[in-house]
Amino acid sequence: MSLVIVGSIGLDTVKTTVEEHANLLGGSASYAAIAGAYYAPVQLVGIVGTDFPQEHVDFFKSRKIDLEGLQVVDGKTFRWSGEYSLDMNSRQTRSIELNVFEKFSPELPASYRSSRFALLGNIAPSLQLHVLDQLQSPHFVIADTMDLWIDIAKPELLQLIARVDMLILNDGEARQLTGENNLMKAGKHICDLGPRYVAIKKGEHGCLLFGKKEGEFFQCGAFPLDSILDPTGAGDTFAGGLAGFLAHSDQAEVTFDLLKKGVVIGSMLASFNVERFSMLRMKDLSFEELQARCQKFIQISAIGSLEV
Amino acid sequence: MSLVIVGSIGLDTVKTTVEEHANLLGGSASYAAIAGAYYAPVQLVGIVGTDFPQEHVDFFKSRKIDLEGLQVVDGKTFRWSGEYSLDMNSRQTRSIELNVFEKFSPELPASYRSSRFALLGNIAPSLQLHVLDQLQSPHFVIADTMDLWIDIAKPELLQLIARVDMLILNDGEARQLTGENNLMKAGKHICDLGPRYVAIKKGEHGCLLFGKKEGEFFQCGAFPLDSILDPTGAGDTFAGGLAGFLAHSDQAEVTFDLLKKGVVIGSMLASFNVERFSMLRMKDLSFEELQARCQKFIQISAIGSLEV
Repeated sequence: MSLVIVGSIGLDTVKTTVEEHANLLGGSASYAAIAGAYYAPVQLVGIVGTDFPQEHVDFFKSRKIDLEGLQVVDGKTFRWSGEYSLDMNSRQTRSIELNVFEKFSPELPASYRSSRFALLGNIAPSLQLHVLDQLQSPHFVIADTMDLWIDIAKPELLQLIARVDMLILNDGEARQLTGENNLMKAGKHICDLGPRYVAIKKGEHGCLLFGKKEGEFFQCGAFPLDSILDPTGAGDTFAGGLAGFLAHSDQAEVTFDLLKKGVVIGSMLASFNVERFSMLRMKDLSFEELQARCQKFIQISAIGSLEV
Repeated sequence: MSLVIVGSIGLDTVKTTVEEHANLLGGSASYAAIAGAYYAPVQLVGIVGTDFPQEHVDFFKSRKIDLEGLQVVDGKTFRWSGEYSLDMNSRQTRSIELNVFEKFSPELPASYRSSRFALLGNIAPSLQLHVLDQLQSPHFVIADTMDLWIDIAKPELLQLIARVDMLILNDGEARQLTGENNLMKAGKHICDLGPRYVAIKKGEHGCLLFGKKEGEFFQCGAFPLDSILDPTGAGDTFAGGLAGFLAHSDQAEVTFDLLKKGVVIGSMLASFNVERFSMLRMKDLSFEELQARCQKFIQISAIGSLEV
């Protein structure tokens, strides 16, 4: 089943303590679409300027990503520049140029509207709601968000949260949204706001998956890496991989067990993505490599039975 | 099989953002002994002053902890005072009074010397070496350490590390000891210094277990808690529980699979310990509760099979 993905598409300049690269393919929808396309036919919704390099368009096309929903308009593409700390756990935005993104109104082509799976990547909640309104019979909708929207658009965000099946956010955002410092309490609190499922991402420490039903809880580690070159887009890759897997499975009911598998797959895709800048690692990541890492992850996380 | 545990025994004053308690039972050996005693007969080696409250002695005795190696000398017991930050992830030492601990020379009673399992809790490496020298036929020896010894006693610490079967330390200490920021590299590096196994503790994010042999790696989450009252002694409890489980199992070879189970049990004991100040939670923790949490942990961590 096809998967609608909406979000930002941009050109990033990323600086770590070791390297700096400019004009890299970036944006929440780009990362999520490339990840999701490992499993499902992706229908991309976004906006770029006429300066958007053809090579990135070709990259999307090479992954069979449907670009009918990609608006190409006069002007410059969204640009973001950020710098990471030594341990890669924190980053500072150095500059943002919204450019054509400032007037983005996501419109779904007719062929997208019947899609039953959607990932509303990190953009303003009002735009996410606008996309949701255009879906005819959504079966499973995931929304991502960020601290900025909790700050400046909380009423719309709460409206959105109440209408989606799953919310994905990071630990700091979960604390900010709920006012709960403890993540277990924060996760349950967010479930009470509407969604059946909530994933709280903890970066290199993995993620927590909460379900509304009694006993639905899963904690997932991250794949341990010898080196991380660029954490940008890890969260979007996670969300895209998870959503792609669910769309691919296309079950009548998205069960907690299915979600657990999706969370593992999303995490493994994200672990590859941070091995190189931008989406460079994804360019040569084969499905077999992904499968092998999933199995390796299961092996290193397995406790087995325990008679204590 | 009995387990020798050496380390500090003290009276702690602990301040969190919510509460402050004075003269609590503390010290690396106290926490480790109480945890280890859930599985194995513990032989305690430590020193206290004549002011050490009888109730703490009685608590040790109630857990069948052998106190022949506990030196009670004229003077005051070791005292430590610390304060935690809001998120409990960092703490500041407010004061330390070494008192009788300053002249501690751990001597093993004759009845302890034939023990095949030992946990060398966090004290000066020269003292840990001195204990190791007194063991007649050690089968599996675990050492814990801290940043202070890496700073001021690295040569002795490296001597010790080369002679023990397993080293336990936290993420910051692993980085400090090896100069490696990446924990996967740091873990392998420490294995190269001698020990067959290394556990790197990551606090609320669980721990990483490394073995010397190809493919020996396990990542273990921590049990997610709704609230943490006092993190003091979590690492010592972890080490004590792990060591106790290994001594209890008393296998001809401590395999990686056995260690994995020990790591889970140590983690679960630590998760109980932080629920209340000092060892108050351990006072009423039943073996059945511990078993139930181990099973719960296995359930919330289980990925199951995955056909990606």
